[in-house]
Amino acid sequence: MSNHLEWDIIDKQTLLHSPVFDVIEQWERSATGIMGSYVAMDAPDWVQVIAEYKGSFVLVRQWRHAAECLSLEFPGGVVDRGEDAMTAARRELLEETGFQAEKITHLGSVSPNPALFKNQFHVYLAEELTPTGEQRLDDDELLTYELKPVDEVLSSFGRGEFTHALMGTAIALYEQYKRK
Amino acid sequence: MSNHLEWDIIDKQTLLHSPVFDVIEQWERSATGIMGSYVAMDAPDWVQVIAEYKGSFVLVRQWRHAAECLSLEFPGGVVDRGEDAMTAARRELLEETGFQAEKITHLGSVSPNPALFKNQFHVYLAEELTPTGEQRLDDDELLTYELKPVDEVLSSFGRGEFTHALMGTAIALYEQYKRK
Repeated sequence: MSNHLEWDIIDKQTLLHSPVFDVIEQWERSATGIMGSYVAMDAPDWVQVIAEYKGSFVLVRQWRHAAECLSLEFPGGVVDRGEDAMTAARRELLEETGFQAEKITHLGSVSPNPALFKNQFHVYLAEELTPTGEQRLDDDELLTYELKPVDEVLSSFGRGEFTHALMGTAIALYEQYKRK
Repeated sequence: MSNHLEWDIIDKQTLLHSPVFDVIEQWERSATGIMGSYVAMDAPDWVQVIAEYKGSFVLVRQWRHAAECLSLEFPGGVVDRGEDAMTAARRELLEETGFQAEKITHLGSVSPNPALFKNQFHVYLAEELTPTGEQRLDDDELLTYELKPVDEVLSSFGRGEFTHALMGTAIALYEQYKRK
C-alpha cells in the first residue's frame, strides 16, 4: 500500500495571477503527520499535435520567450475554455500550419510536471492532412512552419532547435503507439 | 533566415519569489516592432536519471503536490547550486534509491518548456549499478522505489501512475540513444 505517501491540502491561497497561469500556495499534511507548504501552478490544459504528412512531420518554429531561443516543435497550444482537447489539437494545427486533419488519434495525456502543475498535457496524432496553405495567427504570434522527415526528427530531438521537453513526451507516446 | 521571429527583452521585473522558482515579467520587442509582455519562470536546473539494473528500470513513487496524485517516475530532482548536472544525477539516484552508479551517460538536455521556463532539464542513463539498500531522504520526502521491467515501463508510460511528462522526455532520449 502507498497510502502512507499521500498528503491532504489543509488550506491554500493564490500568490499570483498571470495571463498564462496562477501560482498557488498549498498548506498540507502528510498521512504520516508531517506539515508542509508547497507551490503549485494552475493553468489551462495544453495540447501538442504530431501531424504526419507524406513521411514528414509538420513542425513550427517560434521564439520562446522564457528560454530566449528559437524552438522547432510540434504544433500546439492552450485548450480554450469550454473547448475539448481534441478540438484544440485540430484548431492549433490548422491555425499554426494551415493543415486540416481528417483523422485524429489521442496518444495520451500526462501532467507537464505533477510536482508543479495542476493542468494536463494532451498529445494527438493527426493524419490524412490537407494543406490549406493559410495560417491564422494571433497578432503577436510570429511563427513559421516546415516539413521534416519523421526519422530525422526522431533522431534529432534534444539537439539544435529541438529544445522543448514536451516534444519528447509526445515522441515517447508516438513511438509507443507505433509499436502496438 | 528566422531573424524576424526573434524578440529582445527591454525590461523585466520579478513578480514572485518562491522556494522552487521565481516568476519574472519580461517586456519585449519583436524584430518586427511588436511590443509584448511575457511571464517566465527562473528555477535551478532539474535532472532525471534512467537507472537500468538487470533488465529493469529503478523507479520512485512519491506524492506530487500540484497534481495531487502518486506518481511513478525515474529518480531525479534539482541540481544544487555549484553542482554539475551529472553529479546531481548520481546523487539523486543514490539518495532516492540507494543505487550507486558506476557508469553514467548524458542522454540530452532540453528546456522543461521554453515558453515558460529559463532552466534546463538534463537526462542521464545510469548503468553498472550497485544496490546499497539505503535511501537518504529529506524530512518531508516520502518516497519508495521499485524495479520494473524496461519493456513494461516503455509500453506503460502515460497511463496509470506514469503521469510525469518529463519521464516521457527521458524515454524519447533513451530510445534515441538505444537506436544509435
